Amino acid sequence: MRPDPAVTDDAVQRARRVALMVFDVDGVLTDGSLYIGAQGELMKAFDVRDGHGIKLLREAGIEVAILTARRSEIVTARAKELGIARVLQGQADKLAGFDQLLTDTGIAADACGYIGDDWPDLPVLARAGFAATVADACAEVKAAAHWIATAPGGRGAARELAEFILRAQGRFDDLLRKHTVGVSHA
Amino acid sequence: MRPDPAVTDDAVQRARRVALMVFDVDGVLTDGSLYIGAQGELMKAFDVRDGHGIKLLREAGIEVAILTARRSEIVTARAKELGIARVLQGQADKLAGFDQLLTDTGIAADACGYIGDDWPDLPVLARAGFAATVADACAEVKAAAHWIATAPGGRGAARELAEFILRAQGRFDDLLRKHTVGVSHA
Amino acid sequence: MRPDPAVTDDAVQRARRVALMVFDVDGVLTDGSLYIGAQGELMKAFDVRDGHGIKLLREAGIEVAILTARRSEIVTARAKELGIARVLQGQADKLAGFDQLLTDTGIAADACGYIGDDWPDLPVLARAGFAATVADACAEVKAAAHWIATAPGGRGAARELAEFILRAQGRFDDLLRKHTVGVSHA
Amino acid sequence: MRPDPAVTDDAVQRARRVALMVFDVDGVLTDGSLYIGAQGELMKAFDVRDGHGIKLLREAGIEVAILTARRSEIVTARAKELGIARVLQGQADKLAGFDQLLTDTGIAADACGYIGDDWPDLPVLARAGFAATVADACAEVKAAAHWIATAPGGRGAARELAEFILRAQGRFDDLLRKHTVGVSHA
Repeated sequence: MRPDPAVTDDAVQRARRVALMVFDVDGVLTDGSLYIGAQGELMKAFDVRDGHGIKLLREAGIEVAILTARRSEIVTARAKELGIARVLQGQADKLAGFDQLLTDTGIAADACGYIGDDWPDLPVLARAGFAATVADACAEVKAAAHWIATAPGGRGAARELAEFILRAQGRFDDLLRKHTVGVSHA
Repeated sequence: MRPDPAVTDDAVQRARRVALMVFDVDGVLTDGSLYIGAQGELMKAFDVRDGHGIKLLREAGIEVAILTARRSEIVTARAKELGIARVLQGQADKLAGFDQLLTDTGIAADACGYIGDDWPDLPVLARAGFAATVADACAEVKAAAHWIATAPGGRGAARELAEFILRAQGRFDDLLRKHTVGVSHA
Repeated sequence: MRPDPAVTDDAVQRARRVALMVFDVDGVLTDGSLYIGAQGELMKAFDVRDGHGIKLLREAGIEVAILTARRSEIVTARAKELGIARVLQGQADKLAGFDQLLTDTGIAADACGYIGDDWPDLPVLARAGFAATVADACAEVKAAAHWIATAPGGRGAARELAEFILRAQGRFDDLLRKHTVGVSHA
Repeated sequence: MRPDPAVTDDAVQRARRVALMVFDVDGVLTDGSLYIGAQGELMKAFDVRDGHGIKLLREAGIEVAILTARRSEIVTARAKELGIARVLQGQADKLAGFDQLLTDTGIAADACGYIGDDWPDLPVLARAGFAATVADACAEVKAAAHWIATAPGGRGAARELAEFILRAQGRFDDLLRKHTVGVSHA
């Protein structure tokens, strides 16, 4: 059994070790809505503030990857915008995809975070050093997570996760200072 | 009159007999939004977690069908993703469509569930062995249902329904165990 | 000044006389979202249950029209689905459009309902025999309305309005009976 | 440090001086959703009531501009609808873009308002005479604002801002009277 999913010292310790953060897509970077047209998936709705959080993770030197069971050029397009080079799609067996990412990066599972929201994510959440999920995940996933966002998927959960990791690693204040440097122009 | 729509023993008994589960589309698998462009309907927003629930029903050996008054290639595309072979569209007379599904599958009305959200669904809800609806259905439909989801259409109602049926049939725990098997890799 | 906007006897009396019901589009039949692509407006999100309410009004012999300041083939497409023949678009001066509808139908302003949500609707709301609005209208429009839906635009307000008129005119129960006739098959 | 972000006399004084109001796009004129298709951004969801507020600002003689880090023809299309001629896109360095707008208009920073919602907006918020934000902005932006809307981005914040400025400048009642003039026809 996992420890209490509220923010624990354990979660902070685990977030402190994260060198690679892996994101599921549907239900995590989106609210779970699949916009289907006559030719298949037409678009996904991502959140601009989540995107900024992911950019901050990269700015802090943390590797970011995407791991999803579905496959779509939409995810490729969004990953490119965010500068995410590692994108594994069509991974029906997510654990195999996760292991591939560990091999590719040479990063140990213990230093790898994963955020997912549904049953297919359970094996990866059990393996990742830092297992995270969204406020509207199913109960089984929440029970398996070290950390649960207060925001739902696609509406701030990824941003909240990024800030939690940055604070755990003591990088939040430096980054904020850097981004407000324009103030000195005044 | 129908029994109290809260979860009753009657609803559990009825869900236990379901061998064929039939879903309305707009307002049930979606939140009722019709995204219309200049050429007609452009897309529908389905829920990824609802989709996983439907896949679990199929995995448990329960037949799944779609019955809708509107007609669109969008529904065909989504049904294909979910592996649903039985899709009846353009059924202004939904009761006739429902009877067709019973004939096609050789399953009795008593072993057939139906979930709908508005007046055109009333005749089918009166016929189905297990009549279900969504949290945001109109009052007349709620009064006709054996079971009402706590989630609205397109935002978890179909998933909740799938889990209710799987629990009633004693299949939920086995399926969950199967999907978390990856844990043993750790 | 208008009477209290809660449901009053006055509102019921006014709804009873409605022979022509005129709908604004953005913010009334939609939630006010304008989905803009590179080539201009790409789509609008209508509500399937609102649509059913409008069909019920027509089934009860009440004329239905659309009056909007914007212009788009999207509205033409949706009106066609709902069987609404009277569609006035591009009416920057909504009062002129409203007067045109009265002339075209030969129906007096006193027997005409209008539902709108923002300042451009104020002159029409002041003229219509039955002035209605949505739960999320601006304060100035709410102050000018005889009746305010409990649901916001695009999420049930038009359906609620349709049912209010049908009940005021004593047609609701008959229509419901007709739509549940399938029960007798059981 | 900024004064208390609730509506203060200071905020009213600052809004009174606004001759140029500059809007960020994503998260301010939209709810932050980025609708991405296979070819990149497909559309943005703007709010019809926000648009009316912007038109009222222009009607009152206040200059309106758009300043955004992203770049898309979608914003060009929406700006054209609203009659906004000054549109600066692709401004990774927003402060440079803001200074450009001041130069172009010859308006002093003290008479310029800016509304943004995330870290990249912080330098501009520190420079603008009237710094505003949305209800769902991040904490760091809220701390830097003179005024915070009660509505979130894309759902009324821009309308609320427009009305706040118009009231501060004593123009609200005149504009409302002008828009309800149709009443005299009755």
